Order: sequence, then C-alpha cells, then structure tokens
Amino acid sequence: MTKRVVPIVQKIMSANDQIAAEIHKQLNKYRVFSMNFMASPGAGKTSLIELTVKELTDNLKLSVIDGDIATSIDADRAAAAGAHAIQVNTGGECHLDAVMLRSALEQIDLGATDLLIVENVGNLICPASFQLGTHINVLISSTPEGDDKPYKYPQMYQNIDALVINKIDLLPHVDFDLDYFLKGVEILNPGLTNFQLSCRTKEGVESWIQWVIGSLTSFTGEI
Amino acid sequence: MTKRVVPIVQKIMSANDQIAAEIHKQLNKYRVFSMNFMASPGAGKTSLIELTVKELTDNLKLSVIDGDIATSIDADRAAAAGAHAIQVNTGGECHLDAVMLRSALEQIDLGATDLLIVENVGNLICPASFQLGTHINVLISSTPEGDDKPYKYPQMYQNIDALVINKIDLLPHVDFDLDYFLKGVEILNPGLTNFQLSCRTKEGVESWIQWVIGSLTSFTGEI
Repeated sequence: MTKRVVPIVQKIMSANDQIAAEIHKQLNKYRVFSMNFMASPGAGKTSLIELTVKELTDNLKLSVIDGDIATSIDADRAAAAGAHAIQVNTGGECHLDAVMLRSALEQIDLGATDLLIVENVGNLICPASFQLGTHINVLISSTPEGDDKPYKYPQMYQNIDALVINKIDLLPHVDFDLDYFLKGVEILNPGLTNFQLSCRTKEGVESWIQWVIGSLTSFTGEI
Repeated sequence: MTKRVVPIVQKIMSANDQIAAEIHKQLNKYRVFSMNFMASPGAGKTSLIELTVKELTDNLKLSVIDGDIATSIDADRAAAAGAHAIQVNTGGECHLDAVMLRSALEQIDLGATDLLIVENVGNLICPASFQLGTHINVLISSTPEGDDKPYKYPQMYQNIDALVINKIDLLPHVDFDLDYFLKGVEILNPGLTNFQLSCRTKEGVESWIQWVIGSLTSFTGEI
C-alpha cells in the first residue's frame, strides 16, 4: 500500500490565511488602514489605543475591535475614548483568528472608517501564528517585562512591522537594559521601526501619533 | 446511516491527564514536593525561582524544569542560583504539557530531590488547560500588568492554589488598585492564599519562603 500523509495543520492554516486574504482585500476596497496590536497581558495595548483614539478622533473615523478571553473592559475603554468599538470574547481561545475578525467586521461600517485597530488577545506566542489580513502588525512591549523577551519569544518579534516600547517612565525602577533588548530585536527584525514611550506620562507618544498619521496619509488602499 | 461523533479533543486531553496522573504518582513515590509556576511573560517567575533556590539550597535538594519557546536563559539562572536545572524548549508551543514534563523528569534524579519547581511558558492562557501532575499550581502576577487581569483571564485564576503578587515596589509608579484586583481573585477563587512581595527589593519574600517550607514539611507524599 502507498503511505499517505494528511496535512491537517497546513489545511487549517490555509483556511485562516484565505479568509485573512479576503479581509485584506475588503479593507483595501474601503481604504481602511488597519493595525493589529499584539502584546503580553498588561503591556499597554488598550492604553495606547485610548491615546491614539483621543488624538485622532477629531479628524478621523476610528474603529476598534478588541479580542479578549472574557469581559468587555477593553472595548468599553476604546468606546469611551471616542472609537466605534466591538468586543470579541474568544471564550478561552488564546488568539484572534481571521474567522473571528470577519465576524466582528460585519458589525462595522467600513465605508465610514478611516483607521481600524484590532487589539489581539494578550499573549506573546499564539497571535503571531495567525494572519488576520490587517496591514500592519504592531507589538507593544513594556520595560517591566524584562529585556530578554526578544530572545525568548523570537517568532513574535520576527512577525511585526513596528515595535512600541511602553512604560519607559519605569526605567529607573526596573532592571531593563535597553541596548540588550534592542540588540535582540535587531537580530530578529533588522531595521524595525520602534517607539519608546510612556502611555502614563505621555512622553514619546507624539512620535507614535505622527507615524500613525504618516502611515494613514501614505496609504492608498494598495498595500 | 448512524451519525458518529469522534471526540478528538477529549481524547487528547485525556492522554495528557493520564500522563499527568502517572507523573503525580511518581513524584509522590519519591516524596518530591512539586510546584508549577505560571505567569505572563516577565511577571517574575524566574526571579522568584532564583530567590527560592538561594534561600533553600543549603538545607534542601532543589530541581528546576524551565519551559520556554527558545533559549536556556531561565535554566541558566536557576542553575546559577544553586538548583539542578533542565531547560525544555517547546519550539513554538505555548505551554508545557505532561509529555514534555515526563521527558524532562527522565533527566532528574528524583531520589535526590526534595523540591521540584516547574516554570511554565510565559502565558496567562494556555498553561491553565494542561495538567502536569504537580502538587501545587502557583500564579505569579505583577503590578505593572494591571489590576484587571483576574477579570480578563478567569480560567488561570480559577486553576491555582497560591498567588504571588510581585513587583509591589512599583505600586507608587503604576495604576494598580490592589483592592479591585483582590476582589476579582476572591470571586474566582475564594480564600486563595496570596503573597504580596517584590523579588527586586526582597520585601515580603520571607512570608513566601516560610509558606514553601511549611508546605514541604507537611507534605507526606500523599497529596
């Protein structure tokens, strides 16, 4: 008999990637620039979303999709900041996938959206394996997490387009060697754009906001 | 035709739980008291292990099994502190499972071990779903992660026997409402033993050490 191999995992990933490609097309069609925020629990995804929404909401239409195991705490915060916000409760799943995002997008008027921020589930591992079809992957790291994280979670650092290093106001109070951290990032993702800021004190936030505006301005719906 | 349901997931979980039960028996046989440390990336699992090993290594034989996606940074730190340390690289997997732990245990002389600490992969979600056969599940949380974590990651907080709240030295510098945090913990896991400490300043560490010694002393190999 001939030995047969059934590549189940590959098929599942392909199904996700196919839906992600459809989402990507849809976002381009409506010229919605989109970012997927990933991070450890508590690194500051929601705080950065709040700041970004508050800064941009006067001139732009923002939508936020928040992924969490449970509660609507994050979507409530994004909505209070001024965004149209949708909460996705994954019910135990450790990441967002393209099917979940597609369902959430059905509740958003893409024709009335300029910028979409997707807040993934707080997890430095699993979200890196699931394409969502968004334009930019952003990782929010934070100084109290420690400077060894790029070395220990390489896949996440390899799969991002921009890095935010949050909580720099805590640098005097934590053991975090920024040079060692950035050396690890450079090995995994050479030339990666990074922002060093504090959502709490607002230090460094302006550079991030200008980068988001620049990315939006140069976005033609053809990325 | 009769419709048939093949419960794949349940079978996989049962296989894991069966091996976990074997590990549990083996640890009891050799009277090795064992703790499974779980946490977000950077909450302080390795720092707490370093402190615990340094405090206890004069009078007890300690072994540490470190689970990580990549590198041997954590096992190197545990070994430097004085423990027999084994690194498990999961190669992308977001948690330790009983099969991985069984393989690592083959490299440890259980007859010459009093206390085994297993450091799980840094992740607040997936490790809660995989029994390892250890005696105690300990969650290390940390103040910079935010006070909403019990509400957002309920399964983890429900499945633990003790909680360490690390980085209390940062309380003046972060927005962390300890009462709100503990209220969430109490809802999910009433009466849970908790320790408020700082691995950096050593404040509160003594209570934790005394609790570990007490748990070890009362352990008869029949938990």
